Amino acid sequence: MDSIKPCVFIIDVDGVMTTGHFLYTAEGKVMKIFGPDDNDGLSLLKRDIEIRFITGDKKGFPITKKRIVDDMNFPLDVVSTIRRVDWIRGRYPLEKVIYMGDGIFDHYVMREVCYSIAPANADKLAKQHAHYVTERSGGDRAVAEACLHIMAKFFTPFNPSELPSAHGKLSGEWAV
Amino acid sequence: MDSIKPCVFIIDVDGVMTTGHFLYTAEGKVMKIFGPDDNDGLSLLKRDIEIRFITGDKKGFPITKKRIVDDMNFPLDVVSTIRRVDWIRGRYPLEKVIYMGDGIFDHYVMREVCYSIAPANADKLAKQHAHYVTERSGGDRAVAEACLHIMAKFFTPFNPSELPSAHGKLSGEWAV
Amino acid sequence: MDSIKPCVFIIDVDGVMTTGHFLYTAEGKVMKIFGPDDNDGLSLLKRDIEIRFITGDKKGFPITKKRIVDDMNFPLDVVSTIRRVDWIRGRYPLEKVIYMGDGIFDHYVMREVCYSIAPANADKLAKQHAHYVTERSGGDRAVAEACLHIMAKFFTPFNPSELPSAHGKLSGEWAV
Amino acid sequence: MDSIKPCVFIIDVDGVMTTGHFLYTAEGKVMKIFGPDDNDGLSLLKRDIEIRFITGDKKGFPITKKRIVDDMNFPLDVVSTIRRVDWIRGRYPLEKVIYMGDGIFDHYVMREVCYSIAPANADKLAKQHAHYVTERSGGDRAVAEACLHIMAKFFTPFNPSELPSAHGKLSGEWAV
Repeated sequence: MDSIKPCVFIIDVDGVMTTGHFLYTAEGKVMKIFGPDDNDGLSLLKRDIEIRFITGDKKGFPITKKRIVDDMNFPLDVVSTIRRVDWIRGRYPLEKVIYMGDGIFDHYVMREVCYSIAPANADKLAKQHAHYVTERSGGDRAVAEACLHIMAKFFTPFNPSELPSAHGKLSGEWAV
Repeated sequence: MDSIKPCVFIIDVDGVMTTGHFLYTAEGKVMKIFGPDDNDGLSLLKRDIEIRFITGDKKGFPITKKRIVDDMNFPLDVVSTIRRVDWIRGRYPLEKVIYMGDGIFDHYVMREVCYSIAPANADKLAKQHAHYVTERSGGDRAVAEACLHIMAKFFTPFNPSELPSAHGKLSGEWAV
Repeated sequence: MDSIKPCVFIIDVDGVMTTGHFLYTAEGKVMKIFGPDDNDGLSLLKRDIEIRFITGDKKGFPITKKRIVDDMNFPLDVVSTIRRVDWIRGRYPLEKVIYMGDGIFDHYVMREVCYSIAPANADKLAKQHAHYVTERSGGDRAVAEACLHIMAKFFTPFNPSELPSAHGKLSGEWAV
Repeated sequence: MDSIKPCVFIIDVDGVMTTGHFLYTAEGKVMKIFGPDDNDGLSLLKRDIEIRFITGDKKGFPITKKRIVDDMNFPLDVVSTIRRVDWIRGRYPLEKVIYMGDGIFDHYVMREVCYSIAPANADKLAKQHAHYVTERSGGDRAVAEACLHIMAKFFTPFNPSELPSAHGKLSGEWAV
């Protein structure tokens, strides 16, 4: 466990919480593909650290908002990748920020924050700049894996023998 | 063939019968991705053992119900992963239960039942706790493979030379 | 090139022309995923041999028909996998039939016909019984590859230096 | 850096900008799957070279047009693969054309132009004829990778340390 305690986990949505795909009909960008376990992993980690999402996708924002805000109850802001460092600096000390992203410009953010994570299917530059690359891809448990990794590295490791409900209210995908 | 005869095969739906993906529009979780052969594999196994499904996904329940109950004619219950052991114990002797699951909390169930199976793409903990990990992934024949595995291990192995209709009515995906 | 000249290429649809996935909404099986190059490969092969499709999927038949019959102009019949051998025998000499399938019961057909092909992602039994397993999967050029393989093995190999239009009307995906 | 300066980058859409899949309902070809970073990679490259798209897919044209023309602001023409060389020759000197394609007939174009690129998941012939095969597949950053490759080979390599906005207006997926 490290001595530095990060205070926020900021997560890019497309390609991290999703497979990165945009499903188009003749009407436009209508669908995105989210995956299993990420919401449950976040429900474990949120006892330890603030969690919020940012997205650069304005056209797909209603889809992203439906999943992240309405169904998962996390805050979500629209921030262009190339303006993210300034946006984050205005809200948090950069040395206490964990960032997870996958895209061609996400390394601009990764090199400024305290700790950065990329999913297995991320852009090459993003993976080169990340402190940790998950074994799983976006939309295939990458965020769940990142959550357990953050718990083990900065807080208390997840104990697989203990039912999560023992720790308080669980509010993930399958919460009661 | 083992001497213990399990009496029920309980199958988690998302990530096992599906790819684990949730397809979202701005209206919410609207689509799931099921795969080939699973319904046919189950139609072979159901001569030997009771088969039922459980899901923790309340928002996606109408999609799951359409496939599992309406189109495949199997029973389906909504049970949160972290309450599954109690739910199962109230209905079956745990030492006669086979469970198949893929998620971050499914090992809580796996360690209590007689025999457990995880698909190839399951969470790491689920795969570590499973007695058998299929070569195929969820939504890509994992359940069909599990069915043939259960037949070979606990009942009579599937005989590829004999037409399944010879054994009685077949009611899988392609049934007449 | 072999001396036997097959007279028909019979192709199973789901998992061969598609990825095998069934996309479900709360309304049921609404979508299937077809792939690139297959229609173009078939447009080359159809000069040499009759081509037709069979499917066991009654609930998804309108989707399959739209792609195979309306958009690609090939004949399509609904025939349960376990009745396919009889159905084929009533129409063609089995020793002149090439069959391509991917499913758990397709080996019943494969062992009776002259030549059989399975896509890379097929069921294990189907691949064990196939004379040829394509490198590509269903919905990812498996049928296009099978077409070039059949041309090379039984007819005249595709000549990559010659524009296909030189041979007559092309009617594939991208036909003019 | 080579001495030859190409003047246009012509990109096939299906299987290059998309996964190659056609999602069908009973109404027909209704959806295609686009991917991350490609629009951003193109926004970097377009300072150096003209960029345009061609497609052979008439039935899926409204979907393609929505993404390429309406959302990404690039020109798009319908040109059958087997007529593409003539179409290109009528507009550009072939020795100054870079072409990216993935299909069974794309090698007819590739062998005539100055430089050709195929995505990792392309047809075997296309990959054999391409000067460069991307590590990533269509709909999974293949075009973004191609853009950085073209910049490095023919123009000025992308400098990961410099914010792209420093070079002028950025108009990719996540542009402000």
